[in-house]
Amino acid sequence: MHELAASFFLQMAVILCACRVVGWLARRIGQPQVVGEMIAGVLLGPSLVGLLFPEASARLFTEETRGMLYIGSQLGVGLYMFLVGMEFRTELFRARLRSAASVSVAGMVAPFALGALLAPWLITVPGLFAESTRQHEAALFLGAAIAITAFPMLARIIHERGLAGTSLGTLTLAAGAIDDAAAWCVLAIVLASFGGDSAIAITAIGGGILYAAFMLTLGRKWLAILGRLVLRDGHVTPAMMAVILMFFCLSAWFTDLIGIHTVFGGFLLGIAMPRGPLTEGLTRKLEPFTVVFLLPMFFTFSGLNTRLEVMLQPQILLIAVVVLIISILGKGVACWAAARLHGEDNRTSLAVGALMNSRGLMELIIINIGLQMGIIGRELFAILVVMAIVTTLMATPIFEYVYGRHVRKAADTGSSDIDG
Amino acid sequence: MHELAASFFLQMAVILCACRVVGWLARRIGQPQVVGEMIAGVLLGPSLVGLLFPEASARLFTEETRGMLYIGSQLGVGLYMFLVGMEFRTELFRARLRSAASVSVAGMVAPFALGALLAPWLITVPGLFAESTRQHEAALFLGAAIAITAFPMLARIIHERGLAGTSLGTLTLAAGAIDDAAAWCVLAIVLASFGGDSAIAITAIGGGILYAAFMLTLGRKWLAILGRLVLRDGHVTPAMMAVILMFFCLSAWFTDLIGIHTVFGGFLLGIAMPRGPLTEGLTRKLEPFTVVFLLPMFFTFSGLNTRLEVMLQPQILLIAVVVLIISILGKGVACWAAARLHGEDNRTSLAVGALMNSRGLMELIIINIGLQMGIIGRELFAILVVMAIVTTLMATPIFEYVYGRHVRKAADTGSSDIDG
Repeated sequence: MHELAASFFLQMAVILCACRVVGWLARRIGQPQVVGEMIAGVLLGPSLVGLLFPEASARLFTEETRGMLYIGSQLGVGLYMFLVGMEFRTELFRARLRSAASVSVAGMVAPFALGALLAPWLITVPGLFAESTRQHEAALFLGAAIAITAFPMLARIIHERGLAGTSLGTLTLAAGAIDDAAAWCVLAIVLASFGGDSAIAITAIGGGILYAAFMLTLGRKWLAILGRLVLRDGHVTPAMMAVILMFFCLSAWFTDLIGIHTVFGGFLLGIAMPRGPLTEGLTRKLEPFTVVFLLPMFFTFSGLNTRLEVMLQPQILLIAVVVLIISILGKGVACWAAARLHGEDNRTSLAVGALMNSRGLMELIIINIGLQMGIIGRELFAILVVMAIVTTLMATPIFEYVYGRHVRKAADTGSSDIDG
Repeated sequence: MHELAASFFLQMAVILCACRVVGWLARRIGQPQVVGEMIAGVLLGPSLVGLLFPEASARLFTEETRGMLYIGSQLGVGLYMFLVGMEFRTELFRARLRSAASVSVAGMVAPFALGALLAPWLITVPGLFAESTRQHEAALFLGAAIAITAFPMLARIIHERGLAGTSLGTLTLAAGAIDDAAAWCVLAIVLASFGGDSAIAITAIGGGILYAAFMLTLGRKWLAILGRLVLRDGHVTPAMMAVILMFFCLSAWFTDLIGIHTVFGGFLLGIAMPRGPLTEGLTRKLEPFTVVFLLPMFFTFSGLNTRLEVMLQPQILLIAVVVLIISILGKGVACWAAARLHGEDNRTSLAVGALMNSRGLMELIIINIGLQMGIIGRELFAILVVMAIVTTLMATPIFEYVYGRHVRKAADTGSSDIDG
């Protein structure tokens, strides 16, 4: 057990270094940090380091340390989704529901329609889906994977550039939030149905709905009491933080127990939290360590599962190109078209499309769940990793073409490090 | 691997709950949070939960989750020692060297003398030390275990009560810092010598001295550059935090590699850090998660190794009482006497003795290293856990007898949660 600590610290030093170096390179070419870290994770895996230095790689990422990396990833992603949930502002749903409806519907209907179109073909290709995955599950999973948006990144870009009050800002924020919420719901349904056993599916779907309903009603009410305590104290005490982290762990454990995934527990708890000093204090205390230390563990864990060499097979490469095109059509182009039809000018519509099309970390979370739960295979996983990276890479150049380089602020401020 | 996440989250929920409940009870009777969490860890182990609910305990703390708990503990303790190192103010050594000399020398000489006295007896009792532990190692280890002070707790108490400028404050702060530094050096020597193999010992002692010299000269100089960058930027950027965490991991890995322990890597790096916005920003970003989430993992890991039922053996119980008395004599009484001889009044001297005598988390760190490295056995480990808890419990009542209850502030402020 003693050696475990030494290898853990060495591993973390390598991971932090890789994520920072590639992240820095990404920022040099005007890309967000998150793209760099996504790529760094892939490079640390069998696609580069494992290929060039198989021995060093095997020594660094041993079987035992995989477990630690996995737990660190789960904790990081769970806390990250909790932070994202706290940032979700449900008033957006209400205030802009009608104006954003066309964009969000387009960004939801098109992906699921195209997912349904792709599924019958992809399910026949060995290695893409698990044997036990049924066609409707494959279609829904693909739909969710295409529909997801890097909502946190999108929100940060819009706020940083002072676009929150513009039609672009409100449109994208509301549409992105609605689409992401929908995609996560669909994923929960896929996970719930995937067991095959109908009793398991009923537990998962019923339990999930009941738990969500509980969290958004009674849970929200009880959490509001904690929010008032923080207002009274003036700051988030360690005891308060411990209580919230305990709820977080329980929520993550419970959603896993009923058969969906730990991230939902974090996300739901975040949404149910009362906005104000409590969420602000928690974000300040939890975000730095989560984003700087834990998320790189997730990028690496995900990268260790990514085998880009599958792209060397012509059929897989073809599928990758098709999936990429379909993803761009189903999300970016669909949202652009919806905005145009909605009466927006072309530049605004392009920006809406580009932002909605970037998937970032959110996509990695979804496909890692798919792989981990045995819904998809390594080939489709690699294809979707590439899709996530490419669509995220596309966003900034298009956005800058539309809004000009001069509005871009340095991304290196306190809280804008990872938004994907 | 998937089940690992669920058990981890459940385990953490239980751990956070236990630490908070017992910590809250401790505070109700005027004790610091740290004592509560130390006791909570012991209760979660085989001494209570494992005894009463063996099955539930085995299900909750499985072999696989032990590894996670261990890594979380190491990370937590390493980061904690890094934070403590950053709080260490070396100017205390210089400014008050002479005035604090008598107290600090007393708090160092007496423990090691008594440790040397105890060792020949204790080493003959089976189970207290490992077979391969030699008498001088046993003596030095006991000396360090008696000499250690809960420096962070002491510093916090003194600052919170506005005693930093008083003779009590300066005396205790300087003496505590010097004694702790000395105790850690001695522990490093014990660990270095313990391999038996002289080549290993030379690597450890030589490497440790060279590394410490490097960190406190060149390392400090280079880190000062980072400090100036933070002054220029106005805040600690995520990139800066990542760089420091990378150094932290490398430092922890390196000190482990040369044969001392990861905590020294964190501690040395902390001491070498330039004081100012960098250390303040890092403390704000790292302390909450470390103290609220990671340290409870350490308390639990330590508690799982604590078997209080060994106290049922009359000989062990006798030794425990003797060790406790010797520890109080060697540290608390010795420092009280030195302060009296130094011309302080009895109340001040009592307070100095009580504060210097409390060992808190620091003692747990030392004895866990001893157990983990195979220097001491489970019996002595349990004896020293009891000694740590009792001497820490003694501090507050004595201090309050001297300074009165009315000066005690609520301990529940942002950063005073765990100081041991």
